Amino acid sequence: MKLRRIVRRIAVLLALIAVLPGLPAAAAPPTYAELLATLSDADWVRPDPADTLYLDLEGGRVVIVLSNDYAPRHAANLRSLVRAHFFDGLAVTRVQDDYVTQWGNDAGARPLPPGVKALAPEFERAITPALPFTPLKDGDVYAPRVGHSRGLPVARDPASGKTWLAHCYAMVGVGRDMAADSGSGEELYVVIGHAPRHLDRNVTLVGRVLSGMELLSEMPRGTAQMGVYAPDQPRPRVLAMTLASDVPVGERVPIEVFNTEAPDYQRLVEARRNRHDEFFKVPAGRIDLCNAPLPVRMKPLAAH
Amino acid sequence: MKLRRIVRRIAVLLALIAVLPGLPAAAAPPTYAELLATLSDADWVRPDPADTLYLDLEGGRVVIVLSNDYAPRHAANLRSLVRAHFFDGLAVTRVQDDYVTQWGNDAGARPLPPGVKALAPEFERAITPALPFTPLKDGDVYAPRVGHSRGLPVARDPASGKTWLAHCYAMVGVGRDMAADSGSGEELYVVIGHAPRHLDRNVTLVGRVLSGMELLSEMPRGTAQMGVYAPDQPRPRVLAMTLASDVPVGERVPIEVFNTEAPDYQRLVEARRNRHDEFFKVPAGRIDLCNAPLPVRMKPLAAH
Repeated sequence: MKLRRIVRRIAVLLALIAVLPGLPAAAAPPTYAELLATLSDADWVRPDPADTLYLDLEGGRVVIVLSNDYAPRHAANLRSLVRAHFFDGLAVTRVQDDYVTQWGNDAGARPLPPGVKALAPEFERAITPALPFTPLKDGDVYAPRVGHSRGLPVARDPASGKTWLAHCYAMVGVGRDMAADSGSGEELYVVIGHAPRHLDRNVTLVGRVLSGMELLSEMPRGTAQMGVYAPDQPRPRVLAMTLASDVPVGERVPIEVFNTEAPDYQRLVEARRNRHDEFFKVPAGRIDLCNAPLPVRMKPLAAH
Repeated sequence: MKLRRIVRRIAVLLALIAVLPGLPAAAAPPTYAELLATLSDADWVRPDPADTLYLDLEGGRVVIVLSNDYAPRHAANLRSLVRAHFFDGLAVTRVQDDYVTQWGNDAGARPLPPGVKALAPEFERAITPALPFTPLKDGDVYAPRVGHSRGLPVARDPASGKTWLAHCYAMVGVGRDMAADSGSGEELYVVIGHAPRHLDRNVTLVGRVLSGMELLSEMPRGTAQMGVYAPDQPRPRVLAMTLASDVPVGERVPIEVFNTEAPDYQRLVEARRNRHDEFFKVPAGRIDLCNAPLPVRMKPLAAH
């Protein structure tokens, strides 16, 4: 024990010396936090406001990015629903622990606006050369290959030629009934627990929560079956859902996401695969899809 | 589309016929819920009250089972701390979204009771024939083998001869400072998000929350760094922690857990690997460690 303590203290001293200004950089690679603070502005991208939804709750604003790559028809439905103020005044109906928070139309109580219909599912799509894919190298329990595509966690199967969005924490899906083609977007859910990957290719994922996840994950769990709110439980209200492009530029959330196609993304992943923070004694050496970092930051537009 | 609908309706009709009483069982296997309701009472075990902790919060009671197999010294420390009423009146200090809820001694403010000290870590232990291990067959990103041991998720590496508890949702760990041997049990945390498996073998896991997880997962997230509660945030109070064996028999929570060593456990896992509920169109065919079912039930002791 004592020898190990001395060795550890020498290591700490060496690390301290390494960060003194003017000395050459030592072997210790930067931690994730150090790295993230120093990467180029060019590594960050601002999601298109036409693909960005605001979900306003009494506790604050949730920002959601839609995927035109993987669920273009459902994303279009959502734009139509939001522009018709369909969600405004509806409620959160279900919070099932370690699973999902769900909001929107409750048992079809509110009629769909003209032109919005239930859709054929968008469970998976064809792999094409135009579709970006940044693979992770440590494998996956559920799919032959996993990685990221424009900031979203994806799986793919080269044998079938198909790719699909994966049910990681913060992913947003389209609620449906038993029939695969019964979802319209009038009910949405977000993953609030360990990734329920068995839902992959069974429900259409349409996007991801970029900020405000805590507003959805800290809601009281529903006490009826499957986490549905019981009649005696107050339902958190949905004040409004809005498309960012319908909000004046100066009032938009100035959010940016890290570009998973940028070469620097590999450095971020590596800093998480092998953590060199003092706290970690045994770096994992591996990372699973839903633990891979997808950083966001708030960066106001430069003043004119 | 129409042909597929007809085929689907025929399938539903066949499924309905299959469950009619008096007819021979058809091909459709039972769903998880159906199976769980029919399995033998002998498949359920009542955790030893001497290994069972109650964490009482203002919202209700959390039940935690300790692991004598994997963290015997930390489990003993916790028994001593709880019996000295060490936790009573302390608070939840940190709730970091998609990560952990932490409670107990805040920066060592309360002195440890006599005889309780920080411990050498119990990050992993030797594999022995006496230690049960029920493997899962679909692999794992982080470890060579994974499965369950007496109701807890575990990983193992036959090459090193070591096995360790895995950081799945609801697992309880012992907070520590930078030094591996700085944890005593005075601060505890529970996983409330996607499994942070990079913590495996870096922190001593000491048990698992069996019921009341929602009380810990729905707490407001801390707004200071790493989810620590900021000075302006009220901290949820820890009313008391108690050892079940110190509570009169009639006042104990009548909880039972499914025996992961029972042959029937394989049937439960299989019902989740390949879901036959009507909702699922593409059974995953696989399951990851932290999605494997670990059912509990409340079963009062039979009246005398």
